[in-house]
Amino acid sequence: MAHKVAIVGVGLMGGSLAAALRASGFAREILGVDTSPRSLSVARRRGLIDDAATLAAAARADVIVLATPVGALAPLLGELKPLLAKTAVVTDMGSVKAPVAETAESLGMRRFIPSHPIAGAEHAGPEGADAVLFQGRVVILTPAADHDPQALALVESMWRSAGARLVCADARRHDELVAYTSHLPHLLAFACAELLDRQGRVGDWIPFAGSGLRDFLRIAGSDPVMWRDICQANRQALAGALKDYGALLGAYGEALAAGDDEELRAHFVRARALRRQLNGEDIHGDN
Amino acid sequence: MAHKVAIVGVGLMGGSLAAALRASGFAREILGVDTSPRSLSVARRRGLIDDAATLAAAARADVIVLATPVGALAPLLGELKPLLAKTAVVTDMGSVKAPVAETAESLGMRRFIPSHPIAGAEHAGPEGADAVLFQGRVVILTPAADHDPQALALVESMWRSAGARLVCADARRHDELVAYTSHLPHLLAFACAELLDRQGRVGDWIPFAGSGLRDFLRIAGSDPVMWRDICQANRQALAGALKDYGALLGAYGEALAAGDDEELRAHFVRARALRRQLNGEDIHGDN
Repeated sequence: MAHKVAIVGVGLMGGSLAAALRASGFAREILGVDTSPRSLSVARRRGLIDDAATLAAAARADVIVLATPVGALAPLLGELKPLLAKTAVVTDMGSVKAPVAETAESLGMRRFIPSHPIAGAEHAGPEGADAVLFQGRVVILTPAADHDPQALALVESMWRSAGARLVCADARRHDELVAYTSHLPHLLAFACAELLDRQGRVGDWIPFAGSGLRDFLRIAGSDPVMWRDICQANRQALAGALKDYGALLGAYGEALAAGDDEELRAHFVRARALRRQLNGEDIHGDN
Repeated sequence: MAHKVAIVGVGLMGGSLAAALRASGFAREILGVDTSPRSLSVARRRGLIDDAATLAAAARADVIVLATPVGALAPLLGELKPLLAKTAVVTDMGSVKAPVAETAESLGMRRFIPSHPIAGAEHAGPEGADAVLFQGRVVILTPAADHDPQALALVESMWRSAGARLVCADARRHDELVAYTSHLPHLLAFACAELLDRQGRVGDWIPFAGSGLRDFLRIAGSDPVMWRDICQANRQALAGALKDYGALLGAYGEALAAGDDEELRAHFVRARALRRQLNGEDIHGDN
């Protein structure tokens, strides 16, 4: 059965989901809500949405997907709650899950199913929306203990129709893990890029930069406002990850200063083994 | 005029240079020296070298390229010096330049021209050797003040024949800059991978890892022994870079703990601007 879908925030993520749900036949009608008239106009011209709508109109859809920045989610839920049709299912696409899950719980929204697609692209906006963005990607769902099973089933079926693989997790555990797998690495890349910025004119040192550095710094090209909001929403877990990292980097620094090069090598061996596991490679016995 | 070339260390880098010099016609004969009979056998079978040779035989070539790990360079220069033909030109491919440059100076080797190709690949060994590895890549040359101009011209012509773009720099300045553009990022990636290794079984958190993390950690797959040697050779500059980085990351941590999210955003804005410059992109006015 095809559904009426509303996408609140028709940027890259929301626009890509709209394209995927239309292509798969999950959606028969797609409404778009956005504070930016330009985004709505691009989304309509590209056929991502059928119409621009108010939040009140969007609240009458079968599924309402909140694809706004993380910082906007809690107030949006509060605004949406009194407008919702009784059967409406709501989900989001934010990178931090505990705060929005807690807001929904405090509002008694059992048909809100938090989700986090592990996908994205460097550039924002509906211009870059792509129906295959979620194809083969993981989407983490963090349903509350008392969630409505029908709502969960609908959100699962929506993401599956977009080609995603689903993983369920506890919201707090999700936030702890992404602090290490995503939020900390972004902070590290931002800091490394900023430090390079202090090494004089970029033209002076750019010949010394190779493809390794370019790959390493790719995530430092991410949107500063989005990452400010993520830091705010996941402050505690991220502070913990940053502290752990600082301690480990301190150990590297001590080994370096002490000339304990074998200790450094042992660190690098563990790091490379992890990296190979991450890439699904076998671990060879060398070194 | 085609030259007799000797490559000491027929791994990925040495093997790739051999392939490039043969393809370009710079080399008419290529000798290979290696402590590993297996590498020599692979290099010969792949046609990278014409023959395996002793260091004494290699020392009679027109150009001798030292493509060994950084840690082996200084003793190798000492061993090579008394064997060299008077006209022989020597160069290397190491990632750290001041120590080898100083060793060569102390030995009075004016025909040694230190070089550092900003190129590489994740996997080691002559199996991965590729004639186009240096095509369009930068090679940094750090000739001593009293270098032999003919030797420099020959090394320049060798690298140009492999497709490289040449940049000259002071050896110490080179080491300071690569501490920031390469050595520090490698340490940061190693430490991040090692920290992930402590987050329980990889299967538990791997669904939470996206392509951003994979790119960020690519350089953590580098060879631990090679990086131990680089840390050893560039200890002072790298310790300085690590200290600067620790201070900046500490500032991020303080802003995070203090809830100063606008301060974080300002850091991220500077980082993203640098990243865009690195990629040769224009800086747009957003955020």
